[in-house]
Amino acid sequence: MAFTQLKSKLFALHQNKVFELMVISIIVFSALITGAKTYDISATLANVVIWLDMFITVFFLVEILIRLVSEPRFIDFFKKGWNVFDFIIVAASLMPIEGGDSVLLARLLRIFRVLRLVSVIPELRILISALLKALPRMGYIVLLMFIIFYIYAAIGSFMFEAINPVLWGDISISMLTLFRVATFEDWTDVMYETMTEYPLSWIFYLTFIFLTAFVFLNMMIGVILDVMQREHEQYYRETGEGEAGEVHWIKDHTEQIEQRLDRIENLIKQNISTQQKNE
Amino acid sequence: MAFTQLKSKLFALHQNKVFELMVISIIVFSALITGAKTYDISATLANVVIWLDMFITVFFLVEILIRLVSEPRFIDFFKKGWNVFDFIIVAASLMPIEGGDSVLLARLLRIFRVLRLVSVIPELRILISALLKALPRMGYIVLLMFIIFYIYAAIGSFMFEAINPVLWGDISISMLTLFRVATFEDWTDVMYETMTEYPLSWIFYLTFIFLTAFVFLNMMIGVILDVMQREHEQYYRETGEGEAGEVHWIKDHTEQIEQRLDRIENLIKQNISTQQKNE
Amino acid sequence: MAFTQLKSKLFALHQNKVFELMVISIIVFSALITGAKTYDISATLANVVIWLDMFITVFFLVEILIRLVSEPRFIDFFKKGWNVFDFIIVAASLMPIEGGDSVLLARLLRIFRVLRLVSVIPELRILISALLKALPRMGYIVLLMFIIFYIYAAIGSFMFEAINPVLWGDISISMLTLFRVATFEDWTDVMYETMTEYPLSWIFYLTFIFLTAFVFLNMMIGVILDVMQREHEQYYRETGEGEAGEVHWIKDHTEQIEQRLDRIENLIKQNISTQQKNE
Amino acid sequence: MAFTQLKSKLFALHQNKVFELMVISIIVFSALITGAKTYDISATLANVVIWLDMFITVFFLVEILIRLVSEPRFIDFFKKGWNVFDFIIVAASLMPIEGGDSVLLARLLRIFRVLRLVSVIPELRILISALLKALPRMGYIVLLMFIIFYIYAAIGSFMFEAINPVLWGDISISMLTLFRVATFEDWTDVMYETMTEYPLSWIFYLTFIFLTAFVFLNMMIGVILDVMQREHEQYYRETGEGEAGEVHWIKDHTEQIEQRLDRIENLIKQNISTQQKNE
Repeated sequence: MAFTQLKSKLFALHQNKVFELMVISIIVFSALITGAKTYDISATLANVVIWLDMFITVFFLVEILIRLVSEPRFIDFFKKGWNVFDFIIVAASLMPIEGGDSVLLARLLRIFRVLRLVSVIPELRILISALLKALPRMGYIVLLMFIIFYIYAAIGSFMFEAINPVLWGDISISMLTLFRVATFEDWTDVMYETMTEYPLSWIFYLTFIFLTAFVFLNMMIGVILDVMQREHEQYYRETGEGEAGEVHWIKDHTEQIEQRLDRIENLIKQNISTQQKNE
Repeated sequence: MAFTQLKSKLFALHQNKVFELMVISIIVFSALITGAKTYDISATLANVVIWLDMFITVFFLVEILIRLVSEPRFIDFFKKGWNVFDFIIVAASLMPIEGGDSVLLARLLRIFRVLRLVSVIPELRILISALLKALPRMGYIVLLMFIIFYIYAAIGSFMFEAINPVLWGDISISMLTLFRVATFEDWTDVMYETMTEYPLSWIFYLTFIFLTAFVFLNMMIGVILDVMQREHEQYYRETGEGEAGEVHWIKDHTEQIEQRLDRIENLIKQNISTQQKNE
Repeated sequence: MAFTQLKSKLFALHQNKVFELMVISIIVFSALITGAKTYDISATLANVVIWLDMFITVFFLVEILIRLVSEPRFIDFFKKGWNVFDFIIVAASLMPIEGGDSVLLARLLRIFRVLRLVSVIPELRILISALLKALPRMGYIVLLMFIIFYIYAAIGSFMFEAINPVLWGDISISMLTLFRVATFEDWTDVMYETMTEYPLSWIFYLTFIFLTAFVFLNMMIGVILDVMQREHEQYYRETGEGEAGEVHWIKDHTEQIEQRLDRIENLIKQNISTQQKNE
Repeated sequence: MAFTQLKSKLFALHQNKVFELMVISIIVFSALITGAKTYDISATLANVVIWLDMFITVFFLVEILIRLVSEPRFIDFFKKGWNVFDFIIVAASLMPIEGGDSVLLARLLRIFRVLRLVSVIPELRILISALLKALPRMGYIVLLMFIIFYIYAAIGSFMFEAINPVLWGDISISMLTLFRVATFEDWTDVMYETMTEYPLSWIFYLTFIFLTAFVFLNMMIGVILDVMQREHEQYYRETGEGEAGEVHWIKDHTEQIEQRLDRIENLIKQNISTQQKNE
């Protein structure tokens, strides 16, 4: 019972708005201090933050352990994506405490504690979920973009390697150069260099820019359509308001009208038959 | 009564289209002269503008004072956002007249008088309101973007500080460098520098560019959806035209059809019962 | 009658698809030759083009004169935007023939003949009309953007003039520099320069970039919404197909159902009253 | 019969998911090795890949030949776009085997084998089809953009040739320079250079940037609208779900209600007439 009691108390604490705000503040404050090591803060304040940070770490550890233990089987816990996310962040935040061998890695892992914000603030969880749902649609478009990059990189590598091996020496280097061209980053410098040898090489760059812009545009549209459809359906399901809700209302009532017409038709037929019997 | 009369006259003057156009012209002209101090204008013209500017300032002052006085309580006036906006601009435009100690500040405050255009032209007020309404949706996405920037800035600061302290010396400097990378501003120069030490650091830049572009895209979609929904609802409410209006019309008439069918059913039942009584 | 006959013949020629294609080809070909004067073409071919070009010019002149004469009053002709557009292009294309004093101006005017393509190809006319219709919506947003640019330019001019008068010497020069910052063109060079004097001046650039991006985004959304609504309404009106068409169909038939129910109700009432009379 | 049997076996092999994955893996692997010639791979592995690649080439050759032979007439096969696409890739991939005279061309053609991925993966085929369907809408906008580029290039060429012939020497060179300006690539360097001679030439660049951005924006909207409409119609046709599906359902049932009302009206009229006959 003590275990269930502790669990419910922890849960109540977890749900408390003031506590949530406090946790968020400490995470942000701790991250800011870890990051901005160059700012001078008093030793006392730094000590307070270290103790608060330790408390949060222990709290998250206890909280995740109880959530882990309360599952019927360990494996069930790891079936939910957010649980795995929480577990990895908590585990990673424990590492430096256990004594990291590399100071750099230890400090980097402390930085990743900012990601706890995502699992603590529900709105950010929803946002990340929405972003992840839009990912699969992009899969094939990214593949298509990769094919375009690959073919252009291969051509660029074969043609321009002799002109500038720093930019076109390898197929992977060429792909990096093409990504640079796609972001318009000093792309004319790259073009003018190859145009001295191949005066028509501007065709190579312009077709590449048009293709990538066109495919990227389509990727953008795909995401917009996907998110729009999702939002529309969700709004429709939740509220029943708006045009979609009214159409659904009309559909329901059209069915009721049909049933009523059935009844009326039967009444009239019944009426006629009784009249005919009467005669 | 004289007070109410003055108020109504000022209000009538305020509503007058010709006067409005004159006020706008003077604001623009005054701002142009304040700003473009380098252009040579005749002393007479400058004097005219100064007197006109003074008149406008006094007019706005009187107008806002009356609006302030006519409220039952002072605090009510400041509950409306646009009133506070007007008050701050008028107060700021008074400052230089009262004798600003710094010439630079005085001249800067004169420039902000252009913002009066926003409160004078109703269409700009509506525009600003729409922009402000779209802001809250962006709050959490900006937070998410900040987390991404922060983590990458921390990693960049730890890894690349030794290579170039001007770009990566501090977490705040690193964030500025990353904003530069996000705008594609000479980002390859930044990348090539760190690739001499860490040949795989292109992963750092490419993942960062993809993440920020992806999150920014989502922010854009969020705003588009929000504004679209708002416009759609408003148009629907105001006109009742279009598809949404027709659906609403059908809904209303479906209800009337149901009531009529109720009446018809009752009439038939009544008819049958009277027939059965007759027999 | 000869006049009407000539007019109808010219009109028939104008409508002929083969002739239209020929006119387009000659316009394009003539423009290409005028422009790409450096390419070597045979004297014979150049002569042919000159004669064809003359023929087209005369044809357009005659065509526009007849359209002008056939109007009841001259002023009516100039009330339609496309007529004015046609007239200006034809008049401008006549000028060099009449003997332009400046060779440069004459050659520039020959270039503008490419614009005849817009008035010859109907799809381009429609496109331009659509673009022009979307313009008014942008008016106030452009004004808002100008206010933002103006205030930032004034601040920039006052603060940074001493640092670099080439970039910030004047309010108009400052606005050009800010437009450069808005296009992300070497904007960090501009920023780093002012940050040596004012280390916090990055706030100036970042807020400016966010404001302009935000307002531009809204402008884009405005145009998208406007064009979408227009296309939707037009498609709805023309075809009656799709969801909007079906909703309209349902509305019409709901009205008919109500009239039918009226008739049925009256029939039943009549039936009841005749029955009651019978008794 | 043996031919039909072979054909059905090949078809079964072609439909097999494991085989499809194997084919994709070999294509990717083969392309990667062809491209990244600099990476060291063991001679044995390279040999295996060469043999697998040969097998795939022969398989595709046989598969396409059978598809070609099984058509009633040869010309029917080439009426489908994807068949032509497949045929060209297979033919091109055969060329180096037949002994290409140029090593560079042979290696380039091997690279194009990655395009086989598009015809092998159905999702990529659909994607390419969608992209191609959106192309016609862009035709006239690209023409409009070309006219804008052409006129500005002509003006630029006439005005600025003396200042910098490398950028403005020719109309085609000027168009390339303007494309650079449209991508914001060091466009201020181009502008500042011409502003030394013509201080008002910033008007030339700013109007050009606004025009191209505006037209490009419209092109984007056109594509978005086109793809949205297509997706919406397809979803509507396939599922019958959502708002469009419900509206269609309501339309069907409104027709049924009208027929039912017809029957009811006739029944009542019949009832009345029999009653009147009775009397």
